Amino acid sequence: MSSTAKFTNITDVNNLNAWIEEARYLKRNPHIFKKVGAGKCIGLVFFNPSLRTRMSSQRAAQLLGMDTIVLNVGSDGWNLEMSDGAVMDQGAQEHIKDAIQVMSQYCDLLAVRAFADLKNREEDYSERILNDFIKYSDVPVISLESATGHPLQAFADMITIEEQRAEGRRPKVVLTWAPHPRALPQAVANSFVEWVKASDADLVITNPEGYDLAKEVTEGVKVEYDQDKAFADADFIYAKNWSSYEEYGKILSTDSAWQVTSEKMALTNNAKFMHCLPIRRNVVASDEVIDNSIVIKQAENRLFAAAVAFKKVLEQIEK
Amino acid sequence: MSSTAKFTNITDVNNLNAWIEEARYLKRNPHIFKKVGAGKCIGLVFFNPSLRTRMSSQRAAQLLGMDTIVLNVGSDGWNLEMSDGAVMDQGAQEHIKDAIQVMSQYCDLLAVRAFADLKNREEDYSERILNDFIKYSDVPVISLESATGHPLQAFADMITIEEQRAEGRRPKVVLTWAPHPRALPQAVANSFVEWVKASDADLVITNPEGYDLAKEVTEGVKVEYDQDKAFADADFIYAKNWSSYEEYGKILSTDSAWQVTSEKMALTNNAKFMHCLPIRRNVVASDEVIDNSIVIKQAENRLFAAAVAFKKVLEQIEK
Amino acid sequence: MSSTAKFTNITDVNNLNAWIEEARYLKRNPHIFKKVGAGKCIGLVFFNPSLRTRMSSQRAAQLLGMDTIVLNVGSDGWNLEMSDGAVMDQGAQEHIKDAIQVMSQYCDLLAVRAFADLKNREEDYSERILNDFIKYSDVPVISLESATGHPLQAFADMITIEEQRAEGRRPKVVLTWAPHPRALPQAVANSFVEWVKASDADLVITNPEGYDLAKEVTEGVKVEYDQDKAFADADFIYAKNWSSYEEYGKILSTDSAWQVTSEKMALTNNAKFMHCLPIRRNVVASDEVIDNSIVIKQAENRLFAAAVAFKKVLEQIEK
Repeated sequence: MSSTAKFTNITDVNNLNAWIEEARYLKRNPHIFKKVGAGKCIGLVFFNPSLRTRMSSQRAAQLLGMDTIVLNVGSDGWNLEMSDGAVMDQGAQEHIKDAIQVMSQYCDLLAVRAFADLKNREEDYSERILNDFIKYSDVPVISLESATGHPLQAFADMITIEEQRAEGRRPKVVLTWAPHPRALPQAVANSFVEWVKASDADLVITNPEGYDLAKEVTEGVKVEYDQDKAFADADFIYAKNWSSYEEYGKILSTDSAWQVTSEKMALTNNAKFMHCLPIRRNVVASDEVIDNSIVIKQAENRLFAAAVAFKKVLEQIEK
Repeated sequence: MSSTAKFTNITDVNNLNAWIEEARYLKRNPHIFKKVGAGKCIGLVFFNPSLRTRMSSQRAAQLLGMDTIVLNVGSDGWNLEMSDGAVMDQGAQEHIKDAIQVMSQYCDLLAVRAFADLKNREEDYSERILNDFIKYSDVPVISLESATGHPLQAFADMITIEEQRAEGRRPKVVLTWAPHPRALPQAVANSFVEWVKASDADLVITNPEGYDLAKEVTEGVKVEYDQDKAFADADFIYAKNWSSYEEYGKILSTDSAWQVTSEKMALTNNAKFMHCLPIRRNVVASDEVIDNSIVIKQAENRLFAAAVAFKKVLEQIEK
Repeated sequence: MSSTAKFTNITDVNNLNAWIEEARYLKRNPHIFKKVGAGKCIGLVFFNPSLRTRMSSQRAAQLLGMDTIVLNVGSDGWNLEMSDGAVMDQGAQEHIKDAIQVMSQYCDLLAVRAFADLKNREEDYSERILNDFIKYSDVPVISLESATGHPLQAFADMITIEEQRAEGRRPKVVLTWAPHPRALPQAVANSFVEWVKASDADLVITNPEGYDLAKEVTEGVKVEYDQDKAFADADFIYAKNWSSYEEYGKILSTDSAWQVTSEKMALTNNAKFMHCLPIRRNVVASDEVIDNSIVIKQAENRLFAAAVAFKKVLEQIEK
């Protein structure tokens, strides 16, 4: 019964350039698709905090004429049991597979945000919650960031690079690890790498040793441990912290030498600075770098990325 | 000033069969009533967690073309004082009677969920919060589950039984108590009994001694303390835990012999298994029973039950 | 890039009488402006609890045909850093200036509620959060109550006084301090004074010594320390607690002699009793006074005040 239409991964995008063009068209004509989702409803289910995703997803649905229902799991609903076969005599009041089936009865699309918990690599990379949604939902599933990927962010990033690139030059895009006081998932970095690989750009990843992303992700991409070298001639610097994949979920370094500063940006080809936000100022990058960056334009594109992703999935249901 | 139209009880239903038919008609034509609530707004006020009720009520309102406002009392608003005449110099910032009057200024319907607190039977069965809403609201009140009843659940249950019953046979419906680690209200069980009594079905209740529901509820219904005997020849098994009414709010037993298992289901007339959800798997019923049940279809009907209940109340305002 | 249109203060109102008349016109014809905000979206951002403001703002937007997005900062989003130049290696995950810029990308209006924290007078009266919104938002900002003002409440109060005043008599309006167990901001009192000063009414403020509001606010208004004297011949008694401005944020008195009682009301010209709600019954005023008051009618007018304020700002964008 579960739907095959979904938006959870770059593999759900049949033609990235066409999607980017459609998003830019919507940006110029924000009310052009207002009948696409008329009478339809999207359920937005949050296991974790969210500002950009929460607001841009709701607004994207509204631009398509869809109704929205927002559910904060935990505070609004019940504690969910995740394990199959569990004897549920402890704190969890509802099994996730029942909750998903039920929620999907009330919506035409079901979108979910569920972060990695960074305790067990195999479990996080199995995408248990996202895959439970795909398995048990009767309607198409949208990822609003899962344990290992954030495709709506990556889609917005691709729109932004397409808008901001110099004409006639294949851009050099550098993804740089940056320090952070807390252990963060690899989701944004993973998706960024996968989507840039599918686009017309050269990609270099730079991170301290011990911070290599999963091999399946970085395959075919140069990883440079010297940040200065990586920055040379770059057109875009995309900063993001992630915790170690190898020593899973660990913080191996908070070395402030990796902070993106104006001095570092001076090594580039007048690169534009990108970050998915929220960003810790003067830790991940300096105020000066952020205040002269394109991070707000990038966040704005979250809206058009979400709207096009939702529209593409809606079009698959209609068929 | 308070409205006489309401949906808080089986007594608010003038013709149950007609309501069930209208819900099934809406299910086949989900957008047929989209102008019924145009320009109207329903306020959905939650004192307690909610997943099915929260989502199905919002979607039901949307199907009627109504706007919705959701308020989580406590986290969104203020701490409410419940006692008349209180000198409010402690934690409570607003009296419930003021809050209700105010909320009803902004909505055309006001729906409320407020569970029993299971400390004082007289207080819970006086339905103080629900009755305060009925008393102080200027607009019709909908129960989204009160201390002693859950009429939207019971309405969905009646729709489900009508859909799933064998033609030409008056169904035997069995409400069975089941074990649970926490003390739960009697609300779902009470309403189920009241609604089945108003429908075309035979009802048997089975529960351990000490777990009889209130006499006003069970009047005219057979109560069988031997679960196996009760299950014989049953067409529907409706499982639900409730805490004791007699020793009010107490857990007198968590005897797993009352769990609904495949062996128990084998005693029936190939009965369909029902539960209002959320359900604790392998405590209330086994995985096997739940996975072969109609609980998801039952949850789906919450949507159409809510939409018809809202519509019926709207129609009373229009007059 | 930030918008000049806004509604944060009486100075944003070009013609108070015309605004009041428009609100009363809307009240008689609540669906008359339903196309004004079509296709537009308002973001409602709450740093603090809210019942009236939350519900009336959403409903006001709906009456204008606008979409709404509600964000509870903290529980929904991220912990915000407020200080410029901070090295964000502690609890805060996002800088408020980034959050505001981002939120304003997704909305056509951005409304915010952020109370005074009553620790530092200079900081509260600098209206840092509200002014950050004005500075960093790309779209017009609406105050849903800020550190030192609550203009939507004051606008509703002016509508109420206009509705309830005796014809042919310039009303005597008395703002009286009242006791309260917690330290509260001066915002409601400040705005009430400013708006009454801009209206056709005589104003007297009465409060215990030590509770004078800021001189900039009370300039030109009589302050009377004898509550009984102040009440003589009054047409409206507006009660409100506030903490001391002089000894900033302090509770200097909880003297119950300042509670508004029927005996006190007997000193007036049969005055109508007003309060912004929530009100602590039998602390700020007695049950009898509140139950014979116009506080619910006053709360009802919050809806039309919000709708007209939003409409006025929308009209400025259109130009």
